[in-house]
Amino acid sequence: MVSSPKVEKVLRLLQRELGEEKVVLDPVHRAVYERDATTIPVETKPPAGVIFPETKEEVRRIVEVLYEEDIPMIPRGGGSCLTGGSAGLRGDEVVVSFERMNRFRIDLENATVYAEPGVITYELQKAVEKHGLFYPPDPSSYKYSTVGGNVAENAGGPRCVKYGVTRDYVLGLEGVIKYGQTFKFGAPVMKDVAGYDFTKFLVGSEGTLGLITGAILRLIPLPKERRVLLAFFDDLETVGKAVTKIMTSGVFPSALEFMDRVCIKAVNDYKNLGLPEDKAGMLLIEVDGHPLSVREEVVEVASILERLGVETKTAKTKEEEDKLWAARRALGPAISKLGTGKVNEDIVVPRSRLAEYVPAVQKLAQKYGLLCAIFGHIGDGNLHVNFIFDASNPDELKKVERAVEELFKLTVEFGGSITGEHGVGITKKPFLKLQLGEVGLELVRGVKRLFDPKNLFNPGKLVDLT
Amino acid sequence: MVSSPKVEKVLRLLQRELGEEKVVLDPVHRAVYERDATTIPVETKPPAGVIFPETKEEVRRIVEVLYEEDIPMIPRGGGSCLTGGSAGLRGDEVVVSFERMNRFRIDLENATVYAEPGVITYELQKAVEKHGLFYPPDPSSYKYSTVGGNVAENAGGPRCVKYGVTRDYVLGLEGVIKYGQTFKFGAPVMKDVAGYDFTKFLVGSEGTLGLITGAILRLIPLPKERRVLLAFFDDLETVGKAVTKIMTSGVFPSALEFMDRVCIKAVNDYKNLGLPEDKAGMLLIEVDGHPLSVREEVVEVASILERLGVETKTAKTKEEEDKLWAARRALGPAISKLGTGKVNEDIVVPRSRLAEYVPAVQKLAQKYGLLCAIFGHIGDGNLHVNFIFDASNPDELKKVERAVEELFKLTVEFGGSITGEHGVGITKKPFLKLQLGEVGLELVRGVKRLFDPKNLFNPGKLVDLT
Repeated sequence: MVSSPKVEKVLRLLQRELGEEKVVLDPVHRAVYERDATTIPVETKPPAGVIFPETKEEVRRIVEVLYEEDIPMIPRGGGSCLTGGSAGLRGDEVVVSFERMNRFRIDLENATVYAEPGVITYELQKAVEKHGLFYPPDPSSYKYSTVGGNVAENAGGPRCVKYGVTRDYVLGLEGVIKYGQTFKFGAPVMKDVAGYDFTKFLVGSEGTLGLITGAILRLIPLPKERRVLLAFFDDLETVGKAVTKIMTSGVFPSALEFMDRVCIKAVNDYKNLGLPEDKAGMLLIEVDGHPLSVREEVVEVASILERLGVETKTAKTKEEEDKLWAARRALGPAISKLGTGKVNEDIVVPRSRLAEYVPAVQKLAQKYGLLCAIFGHIGDGNLHVNFIFDASNPDELKKVERAVEELFKLTVEFGGSITGEHGVGITKKPFLKLQLGEVGLELVRGVKRLFDPKNLFNPGKLVDLT
Repeated sequence: MVSSPKVEKVLRLLQRELGEEKVVLDPVHRAVYERDATTIPVETKPPAGVIFPETKEEVRRIVEVLYEEDIPMIPRGGGSCLTGGSAGLRGDEVVVSFERMNRFRIDLENATVYAEPGVITYELQKAVEKHGLFYPPDPSSYKYSTVGGNVAENAGGPRCVKYGVTRDYVLGLEGVIKYGQTFKFGAPVMKDVAGYDFTKFLVGSEGTLGLITGAILRLIPLPKERRVLLAFFDDLETVGKAVTKIMTSGVFPSALEFMDRVCIKAVNDYKNLGLPEDKAGMLLIEVDGHPLSVREEVVEVASILERLGVETKTAKTKEEEDKLWAARRALGPAISKLGTGKVNEDIVVPRSRLAEYVPAVQKLAQKYGLLCAIFGHIGDGNLHVNFIFDASNPDELKKVERAVEELFKLTVEFGGSITGEHGVGITKKPFLKLQLGEVGLELVRGVKRLFDPKNLFNPGKLVDLT
């Protein structure tokens, strides 16, 4: 059932204009678009309709009509958001799904690619690699999440320590804002300082300012070689020291991934890797670049670690390396097996504070009687704190909610951020003030009002206007 | 003479509060702060006063008082802006000069540096290099421009093709906006997606949104080796082909600098380098990284060029290399010697269009009877188009103004940007609409109003509110 006769009427008109198959009103089909990949319990409602535009002109027309008629819109890529960014909240929203806008065009001369929002990130990466080019952002969802979703959330991933996040690769954006006004910012060039930079600003705005219809992405030369090294630590202080030594040695690792004791065991159980389970933590260090330098730099990193008394293990073959990365990428499901419920928070702390922060989080989990698994992109200071719980027990869930709140306060006290990758969405909205303060939050509201005075673009996400 | 008794009264009060030597009212001293490095003729007026804060609390207090009293402020770093960004326009402005806020603190563990706005960029670079760390942005002014000025203008430089611009290195900003409200965005971490990204947005805002009191900058591992190669081209089509071949070969050059025929001759005359003057253009290509890979990559680049029939020359010694870079960096003064007047525009075009664009610009210069010298960061698509003229002849100046206007139109038609490095300031303000369109310009005005409803932060620069 569509929530109101008015919305239904507008959608029927759009259906006539755009074509039967582009506007979905069928309740069963609509229900598919109610939720995203968020595991934190959120109350959702199925949208009033789902529209599948195929061209940017269709998107413009959809926004023009819906904005005029006061109908809220939820832009949707792969639906892999972890903070409720593409979930239905009120029942009167229309989901604009970009899955049919999935074309891209590689521009070799400018080393850029023009991509529609529905392009799967991994497919784009595979295509550009054939030309010796590289699009680095690699969120865990990269095999099913989209360019549009990655832009909206400013997606990260393990390689960001060297290569930066999605924002660093977005050179231009086009899209639609209030009343169907279209914009086109940026160009396939590396430098542009003509006015405020709305291109970069729209990255990470979580669909709350308008709809993106296309992106110009920067590509860089594809490194020819990659090598992986594991290091096992008896204490967390040494992890911090090792990271500092590596980062000031002239070697620029393309990944610096941390796993705590719980994660090492979980991944052993899941993938049967035989990693030592008596250690406080493990680092997966990847070096990439020219084959000659990579070979030497792996030895350099190993000797830095050995001088710190750290046990290391180098992958001997490409297969062994792929297995290690597969294990790292399987950490999510591996940890999920530890309980029936899991909340994965993507906090950030300056890496200098890790040795204090991790034990503080472990103590916090103990206080609530929760199992806690910590892993993440330690080079960026971005850690995934996972609380495992019994999903069938409502009391456990309440405990998790309180633990998360305390975790965020702790993170801000440590000079970090409540989110490094997943965005604010619905689930972190109550904590945004903690991060930005009243002055910052008022600026967020001001920009939201400027782009979207009627609060129709992904309302209830990131910030409330009331 | 201070422009109004009211401004003088407020400044005298601030002088009593902050200390005699921190508030300058003396007309001769004030006159020093009237202009910046802009060569395009702009009508300027000396400011009503100059304040030299020494702490961020003093900056907060200054903004609080001046904002309340409706007195406009011009933030100033090294005064090296080329578009009038730190010039006095109305005579009632107060310059806030950050030259005494020039402390910085390196954080090795996080590979970041906290810098006050008055720090000279080059001094910071030298200091971090001692720890094996690297702060890449290198505008030509880097030996006398400041971190605050570089942040305000989103400064670039030759290394940006590989390393990105200033914005890519700013992880956090603190400062003061309307009515003395203070903000602190970001942290010494690589990832932060909590709300809209005001940190990156403030970079390049040209002092029009508030005053910056401190920046957290990202540092990366310092490459151990650099090598330079020159390539001489008979035609511009081959330049474009060479750049594409190099960028898709797996080699990532740390600089790709172009000079046209006029520049080659100018630099020969200025530095006596013996470069061939019969060529259509020259590329300076730098490769950096591990010594082993650099050695091989220089050979790789040379062989790519030779396969295209291009003559190459490799610097044999460190001295020869330094000499080549010194020549590149001396291009500005070398070109200035060609006439009594010079206007240097920093346009950007997709590099795929260079072979059409350069002749179009040369034709445009011919039409106005102007000598034109083109050089720049071709890897970024960022070219410096210099019109040389007789400064004593008012007719010549008018011709230059018309030529510049036509140049900007041409650039936008070519899908580029009217400014890649110098910013909008006063001189490019009339052309911003050409770049952003009415929708974009209205968003610029909206954000300006949000941060600065009284239009007191660097008024008359970047955009007008009326």
